[in-house]
Amino acid sequence: MDLAGTLREIADCSVLSDDGAVAGYVTDWTGRWRGGPAIVARPRTVAAVAAVMAACARAGVAVVPQGGNTGLVAGSVPPAGAVVLSLSSLDAIGEVTDGAVTAGAGVTLAALESFAAARGLTCGLSLASGESATVGGAAATNAGGAEVLRYGSARARIAGLRAVLSDGAVLDRRRPPAKDNTGYDLVDQLVGSEGTLAVITDVTWRLDAAPGERTVLVLAFPSVVDAVAAVPALRGLPGLLALEWSDGAAVARVAAHLGAPAPLPTDGCWVFAEFDGAPEAAGVVAGLLPDNRIAVGAGPEDRIRLWRYRARTTEAVNAAGVPVKLDVGVPLEDFAAAQEAIVGAVAAVSPDVEPVLFGHLAEGNVHVNLLPGPTAPARRFPEELAERLEAAVLGQVLAHGGTVSAEHGIGRAKVPWLARQRGADQVALMRRLKGAWDPSGLLNPGVLFDG
Amino acid sequence: MDLAGTLREIADCSVLSDDGAVAGYVTDWTGRWRGGPAIVARPRTVAAVAAVMAACARAGVAVVPQGGNTGLVAGSVPPAGAVVLSLSSLDAIGEVTDGAVTAGAGVTLAALESFAAARGLTCGLSLASGESATVGGAAATNAGGAEVLRYGSARARIAGLRAVLSDGAVLDRRRPPAKDNTGYDLVDQLVGSEGTLAVITDVTWRLDAAPGERTVLVLAFPSVVDAVAAVPALRGLPGLLALEWSDGAAVARVAAHLGAPAPLPTDGCWVFAEFDGAPEAAGVVAGLLPDNRIAVGAGPEDRIRLWRYRARTTEAVNAAGVPVKLDVGVPLEDFAAAQEAIVGAVAAVSPDVEPVLFGHLAEGNVHVNLLPGPTAPARRFPEELAERLEAAVLGQVLAHGGTVSAEHGIGRAKVPWLARQRGADQVALMRRLKGAWDPSGLLNPGVLFDG
Repeated sequence: MDLAGTLREIADCSVLSDDGAVAGYVTDWTGRWRGGPAIVARPRTVAAVAAVMAACARAGVAVVPQGGNTGLVAGSVPPAGAVVLSLSSLDAIGEVTDGAVTAGAGVTLAALESFAAARGLTCGLSLASGESATVGGAAATNAGGAEVLRYGSARARIAGLRAVLSDGAVLDRRRPPAKDNTGYDLVDQLVGSEGTLAVITDVTWRLDAAPGERTVLVLAFPSVVDAVAAVPALRGLPGLLALEWSDGAAVARVAAHLGAPAPLPTDGCWVFAEFDGAPEAAGVVAGLLPDNRIAVGAGPEDRIRLWRYRARTTEAVNAAGVPVKLDVGVPLEDFAAAQEAIVGAVAAVSPDVEPVLFGHLAEGNVHVNLLPGPTAPARRFPEELAERLEAAVLGQVLAHGGTVSAEHGIGRAKVPWLARQRGADQVALMRRLKGAWDPSGLLNPGVLFDG
Repeated sequence: MDLAGTLREIADCSVLSDDGAVAGYVTDWTGRWRGGPAIVARPRTVAAVAAVMAACARAGVAVVPQGGNTGLVAGSVPPAGAVVLSLSSLDAIGEVTDGAVTAGAGVTLAALESFAAARGLTCGLSLASGESATVGGAAATNAGGAEVLRYGSARARIAGLRAVLSDGAVLDRRRPPAKDNTGYDLVDQLVGSEGTLAVITDVTWRLDAAPGERTVLVLAFPSVVDAVAAVPALRGLPGLLALEWSDGAAVARVAAHLGAPAPLPTDGCWVFAEFDGAPEAAGVVAGLLPDNRIAVGAGPEDRIRLWRYRARTTEAVNAAGVPVKLDVGVPLEDFAAAQEAIVGAVAAVSPDVEPVLFGHLAEGNVHVNLLPGPTAPARRFPEELAERLEAAVLGQVLAHGGTVSAEHGIGRAKVPWLARQRGADQVALMRRLKGAWDPSGLLNPGVLFDG
């Protein structure tokens, strides 16, 4: 029997092999990365996940775990002939115990947050893709987002998990003891491993008390240097939930897209500081800038009206063309210089590129979005130019001691950059770790390392 | 040239090989575990650590990394012929940057806390052995302590580290980017690996604002069941730093040792709740128990006067004999029943044993100290009886879904229990991970796994 036939005999598992039916699973959502052809298996139980893994191991066929397929580095795009293991049907949410809830890998972040909100709690992970992105995907990529400075990245949110190893064995650490020093930490290692070590089937997620009414302060600094200089003062303010930034050009693009003129000058760098409640230290903030460069959004309507100049950047960018999207981090002390170098390097590759820069300020994170400029021949870069632009940006990031991936991961898209950042020795060690978890090498081959 | 001679040629490295000189390095501080004979190498630089590792790798000689040698599971006791690699001379402390400081592995926790306190900060790790225990040892064992509920265990405190691999290569992750999703997390995996994967030479430790004046509330509950029932209310109180417990017999033993009659009834279970500042919610606490079962220690003198009934338990136990010391965790919902089962199992092994139980309440942690009872023939158990007592306790812990090591680790002392708790599959995976980091198997052989 062929593999599709074998998989169809597994209880509680849907199998798709028709090219039309699998189309949404073999291409990433940006349309840039196309994989397959592939078989898609959608198990509804952990036992079925284990059976799929065991069958694929026997057949020697590669397996690509997939959550909401919202990644940006082709980490869940299958090579030809692979099995896409979609976890989307593992969508049960358990009960809150000891401040945490165990959710199936296929539960979306929006569903988890809505479950938490109904109980006065929050999962503390806020992504623009939350309606599609899943708990399992967030775990596998150590997802971050806007509220990392308050709640931490996924690794800090995850109290335990269950996973299926490449031979079909089940590793159950859903509820490890609150303190447990028995051997190596297996949970933290699976978080951020991008589906290359094991298939995460359930995640025990810590929930915190939900913040109350939020207030957002928007500060229109005349320059990035001024914005960075204000970070220590802003970070010290009580109740801070998020500290985001956008360059003036990015804000202007959102304003044009929304048809809503920006309420503050866009000559420099905007900082969005969101607070739980009304910030007590409004006096401190007022001292940072003149009044005509500060806007306060209190109450839901006002807040959304201001936040949209940051929150809707991706939407505004996508409406203008197909961007090259990078997600880098640079040390804050070098933040302004690194940005200048990035923009300069991009211009040296092609003068007809519009850089849109924004991100998470507290961690020195820059989402670099590059759009074809106004006189470019098309709204999408030729692949060869896209690659040269990426190389120019990432080269500058490493030259400034930064990271080529603050949040999105390595996937297939940035494999050559892993060794350039971490060095050959560390990559060799990571390959040995991969071999320890997945001796047959069938889990997500081509992700993190060359196949 | 023999290995000692080779090591003596390494710059910035002291070498001891005389039996008298190495005595303090080959025996653990309790005197229960004796190793060696061994050579002791004390490098003063990371380059010297790398040279020692490379020399030992060439000679095929096992290496036992050692910090303050304050462990309780023989994790730093060398087998005969091994090299003890003492990190105690790596004792430099750097500058505070981004809320963290990089300290050499040999810096004691007391020195780190005193460095932090001078800057209005705290390292957030408070161990009874802090004058001797080191930053490197705390990292290697994922140390916990009394303030885990506020600051987390060592893994949560550690922002980065540097380590030397078994072949002498240096892995430098002292200051990874604030967010960095490039490959597997190597830092978290080294934390808690008990010197079996690499030699930690420097640790970047997060510092928090130091708490202000502390207040301790002592609540003398009539039973363990009552104490556990109060945990959710106590955990919710603002400013909570620590939530400790001692059984009444343990308190009575401290009182007798100090010659200071206990100020509250010792008929049940004492809970020690320490707060940053004065607890606003004194009303809530008052509602839990009648006044004659509550004592408040405000101000340093009063606080120490009350805390000593918990803090000086180990001293009181050691004055009464050589205890069997275990460090287990059980689920809070089963806390009272598990304790009863532990005490019963101990009595079944020998009626002449005095169990002294105390620990960290919030995490269900029980430090089980067993002393020879009043009519025992000696103040120290014969080794064979000690082993049967350990087995009786740990067997009950596993039967109640607990952990055989909440904090102390596995070391050499609990190797057979690792598989009983985690299962053969997980131990096999851990062995493969060990092989990935340390292919030649020379780092701390016999710790975690059979040799």
